[in-house]
Amino acid sequence: MVNKYVDDSLALHTDLYQVNMVETYWDDQIHNRKAVFELYFRKIPFGNGYAIFAGLEKIIEYLNDFHFSDSDIAYLRDELGYHEDFLKYLKTLRFAGTLRAMKEGELVFGNEPILRVEASLAEAQLIETALLNIVNYQTLIATKASRIKQVIGNDMAIEFGTRRAQEMDAAIWGARAAFIAGFEATSNVRAGKIFGIPVSGTHAHAMVQAYRDEYTAFHKYAKRHKDCTFLVDTYDTLKSGVPIAIQVAKELGDKINFKAIRLDSGDLAYLSKEARRMLDEAGFKDTKIIASNDLDEYTIMHLKSQGAKIDAWGIGTKLITAYDQAALGAVYKLVSIEGENGEMIDTIKISGNPEKVTTPGLKKIYRIINRINHKSEGDYIAMEEEKPELEERLKMFHPVHTFIRKFVTNFEAKELHHDIFVNGKLVYQAPKLRDIQQFVKDNLAILWEEYKRSMNPEEYPVDLSQKCWDNKMENIAKVKEKVANGVKK
Amino acid sequence: MVNKYVDDSLALHTDLYQVNMVETYWDDQIHNRKAVFELYFRKIPFGNGYAIFAGLEKIIEYLNDFHFSDSDIAYLRDELGYHEDFLKYLKTLRFAGTLRAMKEGELVFGNEPILRVEASLAEAQLIETALLNIVNYQTLIATKASRIKQVIGNDMAIEFGTRRAQEMDAAIWGARAAFIAGFEATSNVRAGKIFGIPVSGTHAHAMVQAYRDEYTAFHKYAKRHKDCTFLVDTYDTLKSGVPIAIQVAKELGDKINFKAIRLDSGDLAYLSKEARRMLDEAGFKDTKIIASNDLDEYTIMHLKSQGAKIDAWGIGTKLITAYDQAALGAVYKLVSIEGENGEMIDTIKISGNPEKVTTPGLKKIYRIINRINHKSEGDYIAMEEEKPELEERLKMFHPVHTFIRKFVTNFEAKELHHDIFVNGKLVYQAPKLRDIQQFVKDNLAILWEEYKRSMNPEEYPVDLSQKCWDNKMENIAKVKEKVANGVKK
Repeated sequence: MVNKYVDDSLALHTDLYQVNMVETYWDDQIHNRKAVFELYFRKIPFGNGYAIFAGLEKIIEYLNDFHFSDSDIAYLRDELGYHEDFLKYLKTLRFAGTLRAMKEGELVFGNEPILRVEASLAEAQLIETALLNIVNYQTLIATKASRIKQVIGNDMAIEFGTRRAQEMDAAIWGARAAFIAGFEATSNVRAGKIFGIPVSGTHAHAMVQAYRDEYTAFHKYAKRHKDCTFLVDTYDTLKSGVPIAIQVAKELGDKINFKAIRLDSGDLAYLSKEARRMLDEAGFKDTKIIASNDLDEYTIMHLKSQGAKIDAWGIGTKLITAYDQAALGAVYKLVSIEGENGEMIDTIKISGNPEKVTTPGLKKIYRIINRINHKSEGDYIAMEEEKPELEERLKMFHPVHTFIRKFVTNFEAKELHHDIFVNGKLVYQAPKLRDIQQFVKDNLAILWEEYKRSMNPEEYPVDLSQKCWDNKMENIAKVKEKVANGVKK
Repeated sequence: MVNKYVDDSLALHTDLYQVNMVETYWDDQIHNRKAVFELYFRKIPFGNGYAIFAGLEKIIEYLNDFHFSDSDIAYLRDELGYHEDFLKYLKTLRFAGTLRAMKEGELVFGNEPILRVEASLAEAQLIETALLNIVNYQTLIATKASRIKQVIGNDMAIEFGTRRAQEMDAAIWGARAAFIAGFEATSNVRAGKIFGIPVSGTHAHAMVQAYRDEYTAFHKYAKRHKDCTFLVDTYDTLKSGVPIAIQVAKELGDKINFKAIRLDSGDLAYLSKEARRMLDEAGFKDTKIIASNDLDEYTIMHLKSQGAKIDAWGIGTKLITAYDQAALGAVYKLVSIEGENGEMIDTIKISGNPEKVTTPGLKKIYRIINRINHKSEGDYIAMEEEKPELEERLKMFHPVHTFIRKFVTNFEAKELHHDIFVNGKLVYQAPKLRDIQQFVKDNLAILWEEYKRSMNPEEYPVDLSQKCWDNKMENIAKVKEKVANGVKK
């Protein structure tokens, strides 16, 4: 690629309007005022009952390295015409703010802040686009993978999607998100290398074609690889692939571990049952059957209900692209801003759609866990200064249908946000990937089953404290008044 | 990120089975046999009548740089247990093959090779996954963008999708693919920087919130930016946003260019008509209206049919994720392989699904263009040695329903593949991005209108030469015989 400008930084991985807004703030000398933004989505994807947050590791990397490179500055000057005074300021910019976020692998629901950025207005604005880009994709895939893994159960789940992924970053970060959500392995070797995810794979149809028959191909493969999984559908699964795999395995005896056969086309229920019978009759009762071919949670559920004899599932396209809902709509909203005299002022965005009205103010989020059954009762968003953990009897009510309410006693209020950066300094030690995977399992264990149903789950409560709700209503009233006053300043 | 292995190469951006197959070939000393693979998809996405090929620039970059880094080798040795002898071989590997491909921006249809790789079996196999990953996404987005641009017509189309893209590579390569297909600009500044795409954007709701009223926000923005596009839906589009934008523009007079207002929520048909009326009445007849909010070709078509007064369209989620069909299913199939004595042998993959049977042999692809009306009559796949351009009267017949046939005279047979790499050497000079965009326009101009309809277009002919068809049938017969002979070698 003949680039005039080398692609050496991610600071410009942002929308142009962010740069123009920051220029406005800087010109007006309010760029260093403290601003608080929250990142959240409104609706859980796939009609699922929960989502799984992923993306923090990449956000940490991104913020730690945040700076405008020389080539960024040159581009902004020479191609976009920004002035030297403003560029001089940009050049010094680093992320010096505070980030509080959920841990990766935390269960997350609609309308609750996944993360909260407190930074200078300029910094907070410039990082918005990248943060959304990262969280939206990785959370989407972790959630999709979790849905699929719930249906797969204790069978093995393998991520196979790289060739259909939406470019390279999606392939590797998607593989990581799938692992977090409980997948056992990926086929992408680079993802294995950089994240330490187990990798999996044996051979493709091309190898059978290259040797022009399965007998030779399987023998050649077995010569170098003791653990053998043979792909049996290049020509004809039951007439050719499976019998030849069995023949080769018999001929080689102890020289190989005949671990599995793989089915990649045709009716997987019928073929797997027939193949299982043939393998069993030949004495290969421990040889597993791996299936792939456009699988998702729906197909897997149906195959299982038909008694398919499948031990491991390779999931590609439908997982890595979140095919049935390819985007998560997380947003990043200003909830509070420093005024002229250093005071923090709540801000709100009104919309014709009630669900798009933001919740103003500096807030904390808690998971309310019942101390008796150890299940979560719901999430609770309170103003920063509130202390729900000290309350005896917590009133929880639906933030829209406020008559839906309950009182909870004997609970633990677990704060979901953790300090990640404090004044620009990284203070968080990210857990190992396997620990994040375990964290997801632990989190799912305290969720009632009705929220885990893949179709029509119950709605998990995400409630506002009374104070938080009152504050929102006051802010709405103020804006309505301002709008009613019309054009006059 | 605490990586044990630094992410410094894309050689492992492949499926593990590729490495295992290559190890088998190498162990068997057939890894250097010449292999020919073709990359193609079976079905045009979105029910469209054509697709637009994108991805070549990134493929060139990838192949030019193809090598296993020290950390790749260390990972393969220390974590996956590959032996030193094989690793020594991998370490020396570069792409030394020949790549013939369509130009970026070429129109492409189902079941025709977008590119053809002739390389050692090992090289050709290792690069498969990355090539598919690149072509599948970029071609998908170029095609989606073209559909949307067809409906937008001469209005301006702007790519706005980064925050919803499937991770970072998708955002920037998607922005590029959209530009190729006729979009005028992107909001992603990094895409502007590295590809030279025009960038576009002004301010967000957050700026209005930061100043807490539109009047102040618009004034502050205008102070630094002469060209002003005001976002008018933070509180109430018609009662507040538009009137205040007009008021500010009147107060500032010649000091600014009141270029546009932007609508980002609500009923865009109604709001745009009302806003247009208000702007016109205030004398701002040249001020444009930009609309965004989950737009795609269907919504745009309906808005236009209702007389929406929208001059420019910002397209995000639905474009950058190809929301209604988030994956293209391109495959990469072995069509020919060198035998023991240096001869090339055709190979085929049979399937229960007739459309999945591959077309064997070394082939070329031509676009048959009528010299009288300069429209294309269809595409024609012939064996390497055939010379359709020398034929007086070309017989074209449907490769499945063979009774559908026509004879074409007075035609030009334009070869669609070009040499990109020859024996590992890059021989192709990629055109400038603007020239690729123009190339798409020129290509669309020779396509009959019935293939461009966004719903239920006619099926564009992609035909096999008689020789190519006969060869395929012979190969099928041979395999059927082999399968009938069963397990015996």
